Amino acid sequence: MKKHNYSAGPCILPQEVLKEASASVLNFDGLDLSLLEISHRSKNFVAVMDEAVALVKELMEVPEGYSVLFLQGGASLEFVMVPFNLMKNEGGKAAYLNTGTWSSKAIKEAKRLGEVVEVASSKDKNFSYIPKGYSIPVDIDYFHCTSNNTIYGTQMKSFPQTDALKVCDMSSDILSRKVNVADFDLIYAGAQKNMGPAGATLVIVKDEILGKSGRDIPAYLDYATHIDKESMFNTPPVFSVYVSMLTLRWLKSIGGVAEMEKINQAKADLLYGEIDRNSKFYGTAAKEDRSNMNACFLAHEGVDTAQFDEMWKAAGISGINGHRSVGGYRASMYNALPLESVQALVDVMQAFEKL
Amino acid sequence: MKKHNYSAGPCILPQEVLKEASASVLNFDGLDLSLLEISHRSKNFVAVMDEAVALVKELMEVPEGYSVLFLQGGASLEFVMVPFNLMKNEGGKAAYLNTGTWSSKAIKEAKRLGEVVEVASSKDKNFSYIPKGYSIPVDIDYFHCTSNNTIYGTQMKSFPQTDALKVCDMSSDILSRKVNVADFDLIYAGAQKNMGPAGATLVIVKDEILGKSGRDIPAYLDYATHIDKESMFNTPPVFSVYVSMLTLRWLKSIGGVAEMEKINQAKADLLYGEIDRNSKFYGTAAKEDRSNMNACFLAHEGVDTAQFDEMWKAAGISGINGHRSVGGYRASMYNALPLESVQALVDVMQAFEKL
Repeated sequence: MKKHNYSAGPCILPQEVLKEASASVLNFDGLDLSLLEISHRSKNFVAVMDEAVALVKELMEVPEGYSVLFLQGGASLEFVMVPFNLMKNEGGKAAYLNTGTWSSKAIKEAKRLGEVVEVASSKDKNFSYIPKGYSIPVDIDYFHCTSNNTIYGTQMKSFPQTDALKVCDMSSDILSRKVNVADFDLIYAGAQKNMGPAGATLVIVKDEILGKSGRDIPAYLDYATHIDKESMFNTPPVFSVYVSMLTLRWLKSIGGVAEMEKINQAKADLLYGEIDRNSKFYGTAAKEDRSNMNACFLAHEGVDTAQFDEMWKAAGISGINGHRSVGGYRASMYNALPLESVQALVDVMQAFEKL
Repeated sequence: MKKHNYSAGPCILPQEVLKEASASVLNFDGLDLSLLEISHRSKNFVAVMDEAVALVKELMEVPEGYSVLFLQGGASLEFVMVPFNLMKNEGGKAAYLNTGTWSSKAIKEAKRLGEVVEVASSKDKNFSYIPKGYSIPVDIDYFHCTSNNTIYGTQMKSFPQTDALKVCDMSSDILSRKVNVADFDLIYAGAQKNMGPAGATLVIVKDEILGKSGRDIPAYLDYATHIDKESMFNTPPVFSVYVSMLTLRWLKSIGGVAEMEKINQAKADLLYGEIDRNSKFYGTAAKEDRSNMNACFLAHEGVDTAQFDEMWKAAGISGINGHRSVGGYRASMYNALPLESVQALVDVMQAFEKL
């Protein structure tokens, strides 16, 4: 039975991508060699990297003057790289919006290198909403936010205006909806949600913002290093970049980000509709801030969920246990999750309600 | 035709490893899910990480008091992490042995954080030998060396004595020969030569040396972070760790590192024997420092190699073009390269000589 894979990440990838990746581990490009055992400087792999970069530029309509990089270390290393590159060495100051666990970690790393103004936080209500109406200081080196909060199931539906550089961690909703890249100066995302497997990090950076922090930046942490070497400063994560490229090809084939956004909206509408309708469950995030990627919901007090848990497992659903910080259930509906999988969950919720 | 794959890295992996990796991309552990789409915190992947760590400990006979980590960013990020963790914040000083491109890059990164004494360098002869007879200062935080130099084809056959902490970049000969881990305080290696595909970095670190630099270390760059979280501080490079685990299993199955060392010695003896015997070629590295992993050789002046190049390609040999820094040929004989592949090259060299 095909599983309905709701894993929060690493997560579901398109079946056709998995098939092609599997084949290339045995014989890549008809070389009679595995993708894993060729030089990253071979023309065959350079073509993969080039296509991955070109597809990101095309699918996200990246304007001129921005570089697209595939790095390593995930968002966790970006939390370090962002202040190293953008926080002024003398009197550095940045503003961060705190919307959950990942924002908090990013703030912690930035504080090592300068002053951090937390412009707003939703910690008071267990990060169940996105703060609004805050003001961003003008004397800052950059503003940082997290577009989607996997753990708490919230998502920024719009981004604040600021004249400062704008940095966004889009790890868990990149390529899931249309975003105007020109509104940002730096976007980063771990690949392992909508873009590919674990092991690669996408960075989209406006070239002109670099080289101005006055810091002596370690080579690996310096975006300029990787721009100069076209993501080949060191051996790139070959397989992760390749599978990301295949996933980007798939996204293009289904109609690109605009079409993906419609499908994701339909999935979210279906599931949140059921959460709101069903008498046994309720959603945890503020309605206007609900994530189209991760829907968190709990059973009402007194509802015994043991049978529900058996029912969804029996229906081939996996990965909907909630994160320990919220409890209950979390249904992650990343790009590759089909609408039918959401319907399967809704069916189980309805059957459970009728018991 | 099966290729004789001499790629300098990423490089040849055992066929049985590739087959199992390919199958797991479609269906891992009978889960009806791809290895790429399950949570890194699932019991199935945690078991992979645990087995990979246990196999490194067993195969390298890692003593008590050391931690084994799987990180990201390759040796290039280790060049940064080593001084961050070990170079004292106040008056930090380290000693580096310069045996080539990678040592030089490591030195460059260390210099950002403190004083670096280059105890010796073989740059005077294009890094074609390993310096000997140098002295290591006593007032240093650590000594750093590179065990094998992929580009120049040299290898340290022994390591200097010092009372200081000893750090070694073993990226290109890890698991290829017996090494007494207790002689070192920190060993690191990009996976993509003898251990697996690109995208993972192995670190073996003596726990008690950490936490003494007096630095505020960014979380991702702090080995203590990764020890505390058992290499799961952030999403690990799932596929690279998995294929490394399979490769470690394979190494164990053929008899472990001691047996591997014998096979590697036989391959090196066969090829260097031919390089020395053949009237058309000569080796570039000092004989006593020749790498058992990467054999660099040139054609004698006046020898037209065009036909040789055609002959080895026709024999199914790939990846023996020398690095631009040395020219000529470089035959990389990593663990998974069979003796028959070396014989195939030797046969071509002999046929070429007879022309």
